[in-house]
Amino acid sequence: MSEKPLILVTNDDGVLAPGIRFLIDVMKEIGEVVVVAPSSPQSAMGHAITINSTLSLEKLNIDKDLKAEYSCSGTPVDCVKIALSEILDRKPDLCVSGINHGSNSSINVIYSGTMSAAVEAGIEGIPAIGFSLLDFSWNAKFEHTKTYIKQITTEVLKNGLPKGVVLNVNLPKEEIKGIKICRQAKASWQESFDKRTSPHGKEYYWLSGEFVNQDAGEDTDEWALKHNYASIVPVQFDLTAYHAIQQLNDWEL
Amino acid sequence: MSEKPLILVTNDDGVLAPGIRFLIDVMKEIGEVVVVAPSSPQSAMGHAITINSTLSLEKLNIDKDLKAEYSCSGTPVDCVKIALSEILDRKPDLCVSGINHGSNSSINVIYSGTMSAAVEAGIEGIPAIGFSLLDFSWNAKFEHTKTYIKQITTEVLKNGLPKGVVLNVNLPKEEIKGIKICRQAKASWQESFDKRTSPHGKEYYWLSGEFVNQDAGEDTDEWALKHNYASIVPVQFDLTAYHAIQQLNDWEL
Repeated sequence: MSEKPLILVTNDDGVLAPGIRFLIDVMKEIGEVVVVAPSSPQSAMGHAITINSTLSLEKLNIDKDLKAEYSCSGTPVDCVKIALSEILDRKPDLCVSGINHGSNSSINVIYSGTMSAAVEAGIEGIPAIGFSLLDFSWNAKFEHTKTYIKQITTEVLKNGLPKGVVLNVNLPKEEIKGIKICRQAKASWQESFDKRTSPHGKEYYWLSGEFVNQDAGEDTDEWALKHNYASIVPVQFDLTAYHAIQQLNDWEL
Repeated sequence: MSEKPLILVTNDDGVLAPGIRFLIDVMKEIGEVVVVAPSSPQSAMGHAITINSTLSLEKLNIDKDLKAEYSCSGTPVDCVKIALSEILDRKPDLCVSGINHGSNSSINVIYSGTMSAAVEAGIEGIPAIGFSLLDFSWNAKFEHTKTYIKQITTEVLKNGLPKGVVLNVNLPKEEIKGIKICRQAKASWQESFDKRTSPHGKEYYWLSGEFVNQDAGEDTDEWALKHNYASIVPVQFDLTAYHAIQQLNDWEL
């Protein structure tokens, strides 16, 4: 690649989140950057898209060194779709999403707006990476992740990614010992709804819950992160459970 | 199973949609039914959950023959979570979602609120099936799907489902020739945004697009549906691309 690679940056915490501003700074050292990110926080939006209402774009000038920067009123997946269709004049060489404030390891990949944006780019044939930091705080520290993000990004640009695969990268909160290629740990959320009563007497609920890792494997993202490694899970969007097809063919259907 | 199975019914088109009312009627012939479905349409919400605002439940009495029926202000996945945590007194034997007004074949599984509800039940270890009809119309005809839905549901109750797998069932609009166990066709949406100007001079967009099937395989859901078969794709929520792990381990990381 003689020219600088064209990199689309998005996230789910919103265009002003410190995580995406840090990621933009790192990507500026690697390529030409276009940002299209949600105008407001869109955490846990999964692969939602906006079909029953309209979308708007706002041109921003937060960082003068970017090729273009927009906020979009929609979800992270909307941002990728509108960037590819209405903003970019060619397919980007890479899409990066994040850095998410908070983990997207294990089953969280499925709820994550950050990862859904990366998956959407992957569906469009664009190499894509979602980055998440194990720190929910708005004031989270990102500096220690820089060399790892640059290294992973450079390898993806150099090697490409297997067809139908995007990367889910989770980064420890502080010291990072290295990188492990992992599988998604088997885990789920143990829900607990916090039931309250409004001043007008109407009951309502806050969704809350506790993450439960049911997986003792040492090849999982949860294991890697617990031992201070950055985890990379290759993620696919062909959801077919191929191993189950034969079994279902034996049914009386 | 000596007692009647306990069946949780949900959807993404909302609790009043003809598709879920039809599915409820079929399930009443098989088991004891609890309905928890969105109070308003939630199509294309993917695996979104509500964490930045509150949820409310409303007890309904549309159908006197049900064990319980509620609408929930949230997404399809919220409905499953709140049903399991706040409404049901034991884990249901089955969760069915739909019948969706419109196809959820191929890559649409990823955007679909109908299928995300089934996946959420699957994560919780509950056998789950999403049903979708290839007709977007509110006045769609469902009667011809009944024997197929009963047959598939009965087989799932009899055999269970492989661990970590839920079923994505799509049903032809009219005549059904039989059932095929399929893989998810490789396809994507070719976006086209319809750009308009509001009466106040502000530009906005409607997301639109055309479905493009890039897959000529005869073992796909698209092939089956095109040839008037109902398609069943076993869907998994471990998104790890296992085949890519070795390749990534060869990188300089």
